[in-house]
Amino acid sequence: MLTEVLSRGLPGPSASRLAADLGTLEACTRPDRPYTRRAFSDEDRAARRWLAAELAGAGLDVRVDAAGNQIGRQAGRQDGPALVIGSHLDTVEAGGRFDGIAGVLAGLEVARCLAAGGHRLVHPLEVINFTCEEPSDFGLSTIGSRAMSGKLDAATAARLRDRQGRSLAAAIDSVGGRGATLDAARREPGTVRRYLELHIEQAVSLDRAKVPLGAVTAIAAPSRYRVSIRGRQDHAGGTPMADRHDAVAAAAELVLLVERVAKDAGRGMVGTVGVIEARPNMINIVPGEADLLVDFRGIDAEAIGETLARFEAGAIEIGARRRVAVESTSLMRESPLTVGPEMVAAIEGAAHAVGAACQRLTSGASHDANHMARLCPIGLLFIPCRDGRSHCPEEWAEVDHLAMGVRVLLELLLRLDRELS
Amino acid sequence: MLTEVLSRGLPGPSASRLAADLGTLEACTRPDRPYTRRAFSDEDRAARRWLAAELAGAGLDVRVDAAGNQIGRQAGRQDGPALVIGSHLDTVEAGGRFDGIAGVLAGLEVARCLAAGGHRLVHPLEVINFTCEEPSDFGLSTIGSRAMSGKLDAATAARLRDRQGRSLAAAIDSVGGRGATLDAARREPGTVRRYLELHIEQAVSLDRAKVPLGAVTAIAAPSRYRVSIRGRQDHAGGTPMADRHDAVAAAAELVLLVERVAKDAGRGMVGTVGVIEARPNMINIVPGEADLLVDFRGIDAEAIGETLARFEAGAIEIGARRRVAVESTSLMRESPLTVGPEMVAAIEGAAHAVGAACQRLTSGASHDANHMARLCPIGLLFIPCRDGRSHCPEEWAEVDHLAMGVRVLLELLLRLDRELS
Repeated sequence: MLTEVLSRGLPGPSASRLAADLGTLEACTRPDRPYTRRAFSDEDRAARRWLAAELAGAGLDVRVDAAGNQIGRQAGRQDGPALVIGSHLDTVEAGGRFDGIAGVLAGLEVARCLAAGGHRLVHPLEVINFTCEEPSDFGLSTIGSRAMSGKLDAATAARLRDRQGRSLAAAIDSVGGRGATLDAARREPGTVRRYLELHIEQAVSLDRAKVPLGAVTAIAAPSRYRVSIRGRQDHAGGTPMADRHDAVAAAAELVLLVERVAKDAGRGMVGTVGVIEARPNMINIVPGEADLLVDFRGIDAEAIGETLARFEAGAIEIGARRRVAVESTSLMRESPLTVGPEMVAAIEGAAHAVGAACQRLTSGASHDANHMARLCPIGLLFIPCRDGRSHCPEEWAEVDHLAMGVRVLLELLLRLDRELS
Repeated sequence: MLTEVLSRGLPGPSASRLAADLGTLEACTRPDRPYTRRAFSDEDRAARRWLAAELAGAGLDVRVDAAGNQIGRQAGRQDGPALVIGSHLDTVEAGGRFDGIAGVLAGLEVARCLAAGGHRLVHPLEVINFTCEEPSDFGLSTIGSRAMSGKLDAATAARLRDRQGRSLAAAIDSVGGRGATLDAARREPGTVRRYLELHIEQAVSLDRAKVPLGAVTAIAAPSRYRVSIRGRQDHAGGTPMADRHDAVAAAAELVLLVERVAKDAGRGMVGTVGVIEARPNMINIVPGEADLLVDFRGIDAEAIGETLARFEAGAIEIGARRRVAVESTSLMRESPLTVGPEMVAAIEGAAHAVGAACQRLTSGASHDANHMARLCPIGLLFIPCRDGRSHCPEEWAEVDHLAMGVRVLLELLLRLDRELS
């Protein structure tokens, strides 16, 4: 059976071009802390300028929506909802060269292949670089896709502030968005035909199995807490152990509680204390205050429920026993997202057509796809990342795996374009 | 029996004057974080200017030595080693209004009483405000008394840097010292006759016993470690619990280890993790690195030895079990200081003479007196602090207790001046 790509005489993706793109973006980092390109930074703006030129070079009309999302669009042969490929170019601190980036470059490379072959889809095509997918100083992540799916409004963007007191709205303005009219970025369910995202797995299963492609069946739901511990600040030399209300000692028990309840739950649950801060944080003072940010993820709704209940009860017990005030605020409690079986099958079909081995898996990480699922069916393709390492400088994916992923993505896009017409 | 004070017709200390002094210094704080007057800050310099004027007003010649120590001196009727009263005006973050300050004001008030009565000692008198007694950004505390006792040299001051890259030598210069010739601040054993320091207890025994004065018999020795934990930075969603090398989870076990070994040791041992820092400190990342600063204190040499050995062994065990690198660096391991029994008796004698109840006790905290003990016999007088709270905004001592302490200090000084002549 001829693939859609070959039957239309399109060139395949170029691994060397993708390697050059990765190199360009890799260099677009805070020099003292590779590979760091935080959203709204000078590095972010530089990467966006580069992408805008590349998208335009591939024949797309480039604009920035009110949320700062960069959108390259090509009109279809017919009007109507678009087929969208998206991901993000921003990174966490010292974060990596592939998380998000692989998906944006995949969309760009697909557009280049279509342009090189002179092929125009029936549907409009959009390639999107979403604003600030990673956690920001505004206490929010997936800002662009959140706004597009109607879950972030202008009033909130005006209210949220970073440590310098800058509003999220102003930050969005700094990348070409219009924070004051953020609601203009919103799209309604049905106005997007399909959303496709290619991403590195950020876990080890594809790398261990030596399989170059994964079709995601479900995305874990994050549940997050801010835990504020208020003990009593005392002199570290003069205060007997029995008289202490040590906020950091209580925080330590909470860290181990998070770990224990996630481990005990099994069923793929994970729990992390990624952020810990103590005050006044001086060597000769019993800390009076500590704050934690806690992140649980799971695929199994029952396991999630049990884990959160045990955590919340344990936090209360620790506070009472240690005579410190422990206040857990739920920041987020999302439901696991199940990917439609027809989209999983479509990915498998495209992989099979181009000869790529493919396995089903779940995603522990959230993506812009989580929000876009509010607007239309989504498909999420994973490529392996070495040792499952991500959100770290060692994050690595083979460019051949990326090129293979783009080949499947292009085939999938063409199939969907035909089948949905 | 007439007291020395009365027999010389000297006025006693003035509680209202001391209260006014405390108010002046209380206002000398970082406005957003009372009561904060970190060493080398604008607030520190303002407090020093005020003190210089007050010391001069009490008839002392004021100079700043190479280490930035502020020294008010009055020549004695005879030459020779001085009787010195000292403490410090710098505070920890949000630290307090009495720790150190009470001792400097006590010295000032003693000088005022002598001046008002027109009494000149046989010995030279010095009242010293030591530079940076509290922990500094240079990783060092008791900087002024350390330099005076010959334990800090110019080369070290040139090498140590704060986070902004400023050298300790430059910081010392900023308060009128001469970091480049720091060794000029050094004094040799025997060149000081006696060192006296009045301090708040920073523990609860005097407050509980309702006794206004304590004669310190021993000062606990601090033993400090920097613990660096290197795990593996990973994605918090994608990394199964079993695959993690979580630096903060290991740090949490270390915090609880410090607490446990100190509690188990008894005999007055205390152990504190006052500083904890994680990197990259983002909610969706398994932390790859964490650093702790650990502080143990004890009076009993055997208990100290057992505690440190258990801590060091436990740290190794945690690192091995959790597959993270745990590196404990000993920053300091001092021996407990025993105060000479004749100085304890001298304090008790002076207290008895002025009618102040006095009890013997030990100090969990270190003071400038620890270093001055290298130069001469020291006497350390404690006044109660409410609920034993210190190094916190709630730190509080009654001005009447301070005035009573100054009364004893003045009597003690006059007795020593006579007995040692």
